[in-house]
Amino acid sequence: MNSYSSKLVENTVNELAKLPGIGKKTALRLTLHLIKQDLSEVEALSKSILRMRNEIKFCKSCFNISDSDICEICANPKRDHSIICIVEDIRDVMAIENTAQYKGIYHILGGIISPMDGIGPNDLNIESLINKVAQGNINEIIMALSTTIEGDTTIFYIYKKIKDFNLSITTIARGVAIGDELEYTDEITLGRSIINRTPYISSFEKSEGKME
Amino acid sequence: MNSYSSKLVENTVNELAKLPGIGKKTALRLTLHLIKQDLSEVEALSKSILRMRNEIKFCKSCFNISDSDICEICANPKRDHSIICIVEDIRDVMAIENTAQYKGIYHILGGIISPMDGIGPNDLNIESLINKVAQGNINEIIMALSTTIEGDTTIFYIYKKIKDFNLSITTIARGVAIGDELEYTDEITLGRSIINRTPYISSFEKSEGKME
Repeated sequence: MNSYSSKLVENTVNELAKLPGIGKKTALRLTLHLIKQDLSEVEALSKSILRMRNEIKFCKSCFNISDSDICEICANPKRDHSIICIVEDIRDVMAIENTAQYKGIYHILGGIISPMDGIGPNDLNIESLINKVAQGNINEIIMALSTTIEGDTTIFYIYKKIKDFNLSITTIARGVAIGDELEYTDEITLGRSIINRTPYISSFEKSEGKME
Repeated sequence: MNSYSSKLVENTVNELAKLPGIGKKTALRLTLHLIKQDLSEVEALSKSILRMRNEIKFCKSCFNISDSDICEICANPKRDHSIICIVEDIRDVMAIENTAQYKGIYHILGGIISPMDGIGPNDLNIESLINKVAQGNINEIIMALSTTIEGDTTIFYIYKKIKDFNLSITTIARGVAIGDELEYTDEITLGRSIINRTPYISSFEKSEGKME
């Protein structure tokens, strides 16, 4: 596709097509949509993007995105500051926050160790984590990384660095996802879920709690 | 999803999610991508959008998008100005231009007659088409609209308005798409393609041109 009849359109299409997951056809569809919108709408979009990029900050403690130097989670006195959940990026914080099951704080690595992509430990926020742990107020580190080789490598690297401090190191539970059928679960997950089986606790209070 | 840790991010996500085909999750992915880009990149995107919306024009003759009052196609003396191809919107112009098979000019309706969506003939650029035809320099009108009920209705409406002028009115060929297998072609298309069969012309010059 090369004939946009307009340099202005061509320019916008090329800029939009740089975004991940947006090809030239989608970029053109978005551009033609924008042409039809009120100027005030297009201004709001354009300015919100630029303003965000200009003013966004990263929390100096956990590296979460933030409008100020310390993010809302780290600044919240009701959160348990003795538990740190280690995640790869900001989306993981949002995913865990949406479960409403976690009341500790976070530490965002900004990636995981991946030699294939040229990402080593020094490219991640690991140094600052160790400094935080060394201050001695942490009781538990929860590793909430992807269950991939890169995730496991990163967990092991961090484990070696902090294992001598007096704290418990845990990983999030791995096993068969809730709602999944066993026959469609991959064998590695299924095998591990048998090895790491947990005592049965009935969710019906009146049941006698028999193991099956 | 409601916890973005940042009003700036929330704002950008909401603006991006207004675009067609972009939901909150995609908007968040794009936003987090933009945060990581150089300021100059984000500026280029933001400014190209706003500049395009501010400066874009529509060709006064054919209603194509344009950087000036008359679009490149209408201003080109090498195009055949006696043939007008009628299309629904700008994307159709691009699609036809990309075939490099058409050397006439266009007329963009800006939609098709669709009572369900509240679009009547007066909402489209039909009046200006009739004025153009009435000036008497047009030899052929090609109807290149969607092969839907709305497209057919629009074609019929325009046909009635211009049939008394001395010009040929054609529609683009409808039939089995090139590369399609007959057994998967819908029966209406297949039925019409039999009724509207065309003489066989061999593409091998040395063949004897037998009908099969």
